[in-house]
Amino acid sequence: MPSPREADPDLQKAIDENAAAVSKTMEHLLPQTDDAEKRLFNAMRYGTLGGGKRLRPFLVMQSAKLFNVDVSRAKRAAAALEFIHCYSLIHDDLPAMDNADTRRGQPSVHRKYDEATAILAGDALQALAFEILSDNQTHEDPRIRCHLISSLAKAAGGHGMCGGQMLDLIAETEDFDVGSISRLQRLKAGMLMAFACEAGGILGRADEAHRKALRGYAHDLGLAFQVTDDILDVEADPSETGKPANQDEAAGKATFVSTLGKDQARMRAEMLVAQACRHLNVFGARADMLKKFAHYVLERRA
Amino acid sequence: MPSPREADPDLQKAIDENAAAVSKTMEHLLPQTDDAEKRLFNAMRYGTLGGGKRLRPFLVMQSAKLFNVDVSRAKRAAAALEFIHCYSLIHDDLPAMDNADTRRGQPSVHRKYDEATAILAGDALQALAFEILSDNQTHEDPRIRCHLISSLAKAAGGHGMCGGQMLDLIAETEDFDVGSISRLQRLKAGMLMAFACEAGGILGRADEAHRKALRGYAHDLGLAFQVTDDILDVEADPSETGKPANQDEAAGKATFVSTLGKDQARMRAEMLVAQACRHLNVFGARADMLKKFAHYVLERRA
Repeated sequence: MPSPREADPDLQKAIDENAAAVSKTMEHLLPQTDDAEKRLFNAMRYGTLGGGKRLRPFLVMQSAKLFNVDVSRAKRAAAALEFIHCYSLIHDDLPAMDNADTRRGQPSVHRKYDEATAILAGDALQALAFEILSDNQTHEDPRIRCHLISSLAKAAGGHGMCGGQMLDLIAETEDFDVGSISRLQRLKAGMLMAFACEAGGILGRADEAHRKALRGYAHDLGLAFQVTDDILDVEADPSETGKPANQDEAAGKATFVSTLGKDQARMRAEMLVAQACRHLNVFGARADMLKKFAHYVLERRA
Repeated sequence: MPSPREADPDLQKAIDENAAAVSKTMEHLLPQTDDAEKRLFNAMRYGTLGGGKRLRPFLVMQSAKLFNVDVSRAKRAAAALEFIHCYSLIHDDLPAMDNADTRRGQPSVHRKYDEATAILAGDALQALAFEILSDNQTHEDPRIRCHLISSLAKAAGGHGMCGGQMLDLIAETEDFDVGSISRLQRLKAGMLMAFACEAGGILGRADEAHRKALRGYAHDLGLAFQVTDDILDVEADPSETGKPANQDEAAGKATFVSTLGKDQARMRAEMLVAQACRHLNVFGARADMLKKFAHYVLERRA
């Protein structure tokens, strides 16, 4: 097993700068009020602005760069996607779901506020994501905006993330084989990851060959991401991941590690990353950062 | 207090026919699968197809008719709105919110399935609503589709329905005056009602004067609807409403009835309905059904 290395310094710098820039856009896009319902808006801010590496937004921004998309537009699409991701974390942490008291080392939204506020904050964040995409500041062509909305809605809905979450709950009590776990993860996390990579292509009116290359990259990257997540769950330091170790095992969840073993799981992740990078060859050196990112997924410690 | 009458037979027929037609469209638009996540899709169907008068869709269809909008398009917009309404009921019934075991005399979604499934079903229904609106079958002009999405997202989000739900929770422990309750209800229910009335105008490219008239009608109708809801909560027969009587009082919620008294509340509703109808004069006889509907809101028993 290769020992975890530090991320490439260029990549780390790019990730950090991107996280700061997208977080600023998110802050700007979140609603504010002095009215009595401000508790809801505070919970929305708490659940979205408390750090995080903004990896999905990073993919949006990098894929947008391939097609010279205007940065301020790409940041709006990136923020919309991140709001969907954050709402899913807020709902996922609820007692009826993963029952997580903490997220990134801080109280989860329903622990900081209460369950009802957490449910509503998630609901309002989902609406906000689609409101942002429908605005002409995201793209002047309403056809492109509708394309983004359609793709994100599909990635987030029953045939995407929500369907994957359902499978995740079912996996706690049923035996899933590797094929079923792959499908679960493709729905639960892979579809949003695919949207992240395709969003730049949609904004930049990429041709089908380029869009297909990005989808291929996203597919393999998404699975690699999940395999390494499962590995991190069993071996990572809780002080780095901000969540307790062996959560999945404790919940009786089938994971790549419990099904394949840790060494096989790592080999699978390495193979997926190599495959992901091959899809990007069509873009030449311009896709180097996305390739570095794929390797980073493999080597990250949190 | 006027004794409750039967609804106008023409209106009743129009409401029933509309409910059947829109429910059929909803059924057609709901996702299906034979895969393991079908529990989610079943819960989505259960939470949306179990009856209901489809009053918001009725408003969409009637407002669309004023501008000769194609019926199949209007039904898609009506279904999208109803999916938002249904998701809000599913989440509202959760133990952390209203903790309602039944809805229309049947087990609520989290009682029929479980809490996690109910949360996910609501989330997936919200995504579905925006997916439907982004599709060119809803309107061939993507500008119109984006307008519908933007308006519905605003009506459903933090500055709309979710904000109103937050106020509703706060109202359980804080003293709200009539102004605050009006605002609560305008956000919680009025904004979706306003979207229902405006959607036809958006689909039909109505001019600003006509859109303003519809918004005025929606505003007064929405408040009248809530006042009568509060009255029904204290005086209706549980066998007709399908929910226990005095739920609001038991939850310690400030309502129009608890604040104004029942007779004053009824007078306020009557005044609002008269005002709502006056906005429609600009449409002449074509708006008769919408006027009848406003009177029906006053006289309904469930």
